[in-house]
Amino acid sequence: MDANNIPKIGYRIYNLAKKLWHYNRSITGIDNRKTLKHLQGISKKLKIKSIKSGKKVFDWVVPDEWNVKDAWIKDAKGNKIIDFKKNNVHLMGYSIPKKCDLTFEELKKNIFVDHERPNAIPYITSYYKKRWGFSMSLNQLKKLKKQKYKVFINSSLKPGVLNYGEILIKGKIKKEILLSTYMCHPSLANDNLSGIVTTIYLAKWIEELKDRKYSYRIIFIPETIGSIAYLSKHFKELKKNIIGGFNITCVGDNRAYSYLPSRSGNTLSDKVAKHVLNNIDKKFVRLTWFNRGSDERQYCSPGIDLPIASIMRTAFARYPEYHTSDDNLKKVVSPKGLAGGYNAIKLAIEAIEKNCYPKAKIMCMPQLGKRGLYTTLGTKKQNHNTRLMMNILTYADGKNSLIDIAEKSHRPIWDTYKIIEILIKEKIISI
Amino acid sequence: MDANNIPKIGYRIYNLAKKLWHYNRSITGIDNRKTLKHLQGISKKLKIKSIKSGKKVFDWVVPDEWNVKDAWIKDAKGNKIIDFKKNNVHLMGYSIPKKCDLTFEELKKNIFVDHERPNAIPYITSYYKKRWGFSMSLNQLKKLKKQKYKVFINSSLKPGVLNYGEILIKGKIKKEILLSTYMCHPSLANDNLSGIVTTIYLAKWIEELKDRKYSYRIIFIPETIGSIAYLSKHFKELKKNIIGGFNITCVGDNRAYSYLPSRSGNTLSDKVAKHVLNNIDKKFVRLTWFNRGSDERQYCSPGIDLPIASIMRTAFARYPEYHTSDDNLKKVVSPKGLAGGYNAIKLAIEAIEKNCYPKAKIMCMPQLGKRGLYTTLGTKKQNHNTRLMMNILTYADGKNSLIDIAEKSHRPIWDTYKIIEILIKEKIISI
Amino acid sequence: MDANNIPKIGYRIYNLAKKLWHYNRSITGIDNRKTLKHLQGISKKLKIKSIKSGKKVFDWVVPDEWNVKDAWIKDAKGNKIIDFKKNNVHLMGYSIPKKCDLTFEELKKNIFVDHERPNAIPYITSYYKKRWGFSMSLNQLKKLKKQKYKVFINSSLKPGVLNYGEILIKGKIKKEILLSTYMCHPSLANDNLSGIVTTIYLAKWIEELKDRKYSYRIIFIPETIGSIAYLSKHFKELKKNIIGGFNITCVGDNRAYSYLPSRSGNTLSDKVAKHVLNNIDKKFVRLTWFNRGSDERQYCSPGIDLPIASIMRTAFARYPEYHTSDDNLKKVVSPKGLAGGYNAIKLAIEAIEKNCYPKAKIMCMPQLGKRGLYTTLGTKKQNHNTRLMMNILTYADGKNSLIDIAEKSHRPIWDTYKIIEILIKEKIISI
Repeated sequence: MDANNIPKIGYRIYNLAKKLWHYNRSITGIDNRKTLKHLQGISKKLKIKSIKSGKKVFDWVVPDEWNVKDAWIKDAKGNKIIDFKKNNVHLMGYSIPKKCDLTFEELKKNIFVDHERPNAIPYITSYYKKRWGFSMSLNQLKKLKKQKYKVFINSSLKPGVLNYGEILIKGKIKKEILLSTYMCHPSLANDNLSGIVTTIYLAKWIEELKDRKYSYRIIFIPETIGSIAYLSKHFKELKKNIIGGFNITCVGDNRAYSYLPSRSGNTLSDKVAKHVLNNIDKKFVRLTWFNRGSDERQYCSPGIDLPIASIMRTAFARYPEYHTSDDNLKKVVSPKGLAGGYNAIKLAIEAIEKNCYPKAKIMCMPQLGKRGLYTTLGTKKQNHNTRLMMNILTYADGKNSLIDIAEKSHRPIWDTYKIIEILIKEKIISI
Repeated sequence: MDANNIPKIGYRIYNLAKKLWHYNRSITGIDNRKTLKHLQGISKKLKIKSIKSGKKVFDWVVPDEWNVKDAWIKDAKGNKIIDFKKNNVHLMGYSIPKKCDLTFEELKKNIFVDHERPNAIPYITSYYKKRWGFSMSLNQLKKLKKQKYKVFINSSLKPGVLNYGEILIKGKIKKEILLSTYMCHPSLANDNLSGIVTTIYLAKWIEELKDRKYSYRIIFIPETIGSIAYLSKHFKELKKNIIGGFNITCVGDNRAYSYLPSRSGNTLSDKVAKHVLNNIDKKFVRLTWFNRGSDERQYCSPGIDLPIASIMRTAFARYPEYHTSDDNLKKVVSPKGLAGGYNAIKLAIEAIEKNCYPKAKIMCMPQLGKRGLYTTLGTKKQNHNTRLMMNILTYADGKNSLIDIAEKSHRPIWDTYKIIEILIKEKIISI
Repeated sequence: MDANNIPKIGYRIYNLAKKLWHYNRSITGIDNRKTLKHLQGISKKLKIKSIKSGKKVFDWVVPDEWNVKDAWIKDAKGNKIIDFKKNNVHLMGYSIPKKCDLTFEELKKNIFVDHERPNAIPYITSYYKKRWGFSMSLNQLKKLKKQKYKVFINSSLKPGVLNYGEILIKGKIKKEILLSTYMCHPSLANDNLSGIVTTIYLAKWIEELKDRKYSYRIIFIPETIGSIAYLSKHFKELKKNIIGGFNITCVGDNRAYSYLPSRSGNTLSDKVAKHVLNNIDKKFVRLTWFNRGSDERQYCSPGIDLPIASIMRTAFARYPEYHTSDDNLKKVVSPKGLAGGYNAIKLAIEAIEKNCYPKAKIMCMPQLGKRGLYTTLGTKKQNHNTRLMMNILTYADGKNSLIDIAEKSHRPIWDTYKIIEILIKEKIISI
């Protein structure tokens, strides 16, 4: 994939990201609704759902809704040195309203910086303890003079709702594939605007998929509280129906591919994720359950144990711009990066759709020659795809899955799809 | 094993190979019957069986019988430039009758050469599509002049029979060991005249084996169509009785030992093959199911799944002379090579015969000293075979097989046979 | 642990070893009883048991009791060149009485030396064949002149008893942990005076252990015949109740830590031993069942199969002073060595006591913040012990043991004890 060869889908996803960039997404609030409404432009099946503040969801309580009209810090001369409207990462998530005059020393107590990345604004939240705060770059803080400052936060924190988006797509069978992405971060690109925009385009592709076998459940939630709330409401049907799926996060930069396992590490989603990534990029990063940090923590928690893994580009907490204002659409996320993330998950979904347990209908080797599927001339050589066909046949005992056979053949599963079709048509195998 | 130490059996097997060398073996025909009749001179138990042309065997049909009286190509001056009677590899297997005059360009379309081995005649067949053809060395082809040629093939292709040889040897129990070798190649030495001659001498050894536990089924068949036909006829009894066995091919050169697994790779035959080869030659070649290419493809096909592995010297398709006239008794196969192949399979059969599940009849360590089996003096040292005896005892829980115990002890199983006898006699273990 | 930091327990154990040093321990005899009586000073629960000579125990017979009053060799001038009273290792264990004059050549037949360690006296026994003998250093033997020698052994070998010590400590449940150590060697320090003195102090610690869950069975026996005799008498109750335990030997030198597995290698004791040693000293020596040589041979013999592993410092037969007079309290065993051996086994016992199967009482992640167990500020970092708490929670499915969780977390199990207490108190998990 060189620069000239970036698939168009990469640009489409990237352009959507630019449109959604400025919203001040959080775990609740108007901008979450606006984001979801925008997504309905791509998929009409997306429904915006809400859960009321105060609702108990397992061990948690849905918090009050948070909205921000304005927020700034002015110096003694009245210059805005921090302006929420210019970069929403400056404001601590869930900051309470505030209006006051402070000395530099007093102000400093509510300012957060990132010592490891002195030019970037760190992303800070305090969802469950009432606080206020701003973050700024270390270099900006160093330049601040000892003078009086005015602080203004025009936010509201009141009973309201937590919103999420849900797309349900019916397939031939009731068994479902779950795609989950989170939308609680403001203007941060890879983590996780990339997830939101990639997921909606995956939804669009799935809606148009011919002969879709599985049903799909695609959700856009705030991280942690959102997945806990969703599980609290839908756990039983999810446990009954979900056979695989992915948490979609950090799918937009072009530096690496990464795989984060489910808790058990041995679900179909894990197998598929590793297979796809290994066939896209042998050097893909194999993370472990120790690197968990997103909604897989809920989906795979004891007793929940849904078969959810993660296919990412560079994973959360593993790139230097992570959770800072540098995680943006210029420095980190690119059309090429998004196209790669989209493609990997698409291939993984396809692999789950196409996976099967081929079973020979003929004892011993079938005579392929009489069907025109094999050279009639006995020589030393054998063609690459003939060899793959022979492998499919030799493993077609109804116990090896197609993905297992592809793995054993050191070939991507997508190379087998056409061959499987032929072998079914020729009544050599059934699936 | 230095030159002076080649076991006599190597020369005996080699001499038989020389006698059978010139027959034009194929999947059917008179020379197959002649080969089998010759083998009856070594084992009277060998029975020559036949299946009629046209018989449906699973997905295949037994083809017409092919016989050749003569075949040649003459140049414009009437010189025979190719003569089947001098080397039967020249004639494409199953060539139809032909008599015609051709230009060089016309002739060339039916001539096969091996570009990788310019001095050798490649071995070519066309069993299931009616064709004619000759093969010659690339260097011979290069020298041919543009002139008229006469082609003559006095072959017949008519309904007849497919022959195979079968030796059934009764043991104490009905469970069987299968040895299968193929005899469809004309004058090619390692692949697989070596298999034919080694197998008949193994049959002779088995017939003379004292206290034979297992019954034996030893078959000489044409590759692929022969094993499919045999399975089609005997599948149920094989499935019921076969507990292990080997496909015997390429056992005649002295360059390496090789192991090709069964499809599952974990049968008793696999375990034994690996154990024996590891104790003969630690550097033996470990092939995988991907290197399959002989009748293991049928014996291990889905639903058949017999426990058949292969112990070879240099395996088919893995030596430069393979499927050319260079695979002969001078360049490739030797008495030393055959002696090694024979010995390895003999040790493997013995290991299956002797394998057992020793079970201690005494709780805690037995007092070996009072039985004269252990030094009565407590010092620091312990003898090599005493240590092996102690290992047998410590693992004698009725769950570890003797071969497992030998493996755990890093010793060949044959070192345990005498010790097992002693321990049984001393009533310390039962098997 | 530097020289100044040797725990006091190391000195206490070492001082006891000095007091027990001179006794002429063997598989029977007065000095075994004296040793056991001395141990009663540390643990009043220790009971001295006896089994009569001639008693059949599985495949063995309890031998006559052996006692020695004096033993020496004098040269022609009447000088004692060997004196049992100066070093009891000189006398072959179970030497029959002897009084005679011998030429040098005659004497030499009953003298044992260690060619690999020319200055040391080797330790020799002949329990089950009536013999007499002395051992001396090779260098001493080389200097002996060709003259007459007087030999005197005032020993007795008569029906009596085999003694052993037994401590039974009740816990909350009937399931037991077995500690076994052997006391059949005379003045040899690491093998196994170190085991005797360490075990009695472990018994003392166990007696004082608060909230002891398991019951304990702690035995001081002669090696081999003692464990066979004990198993012969108590096998059924041991098989029913023992859930783990250790054979305690060679726990006194400071050169290494070693682990010897049970026969199966996968018992709780094995898991705990490896976990503890890996967290004490990553370079600990991993022995295999091939290195067995002590009472694990009985405890793990087929059909007995108790879950007994060994935690040692430098293991028997693996240090140059082994089974010679150089295995003494100056050259080999030290307070530091003993403190380390004691500590490792104590940690292992504690790990078995504390091991449990945590099970989450809450679906999805619990909200730790509201309980003050987690920072309420969302930033990039996470504390070391918070991370361990999160790991315990994510694996708390009732199937992972605490030791498994500690292993997965790359942390010692002892770091989890306090966290488990908190999580139980907070009703987040049950065990």
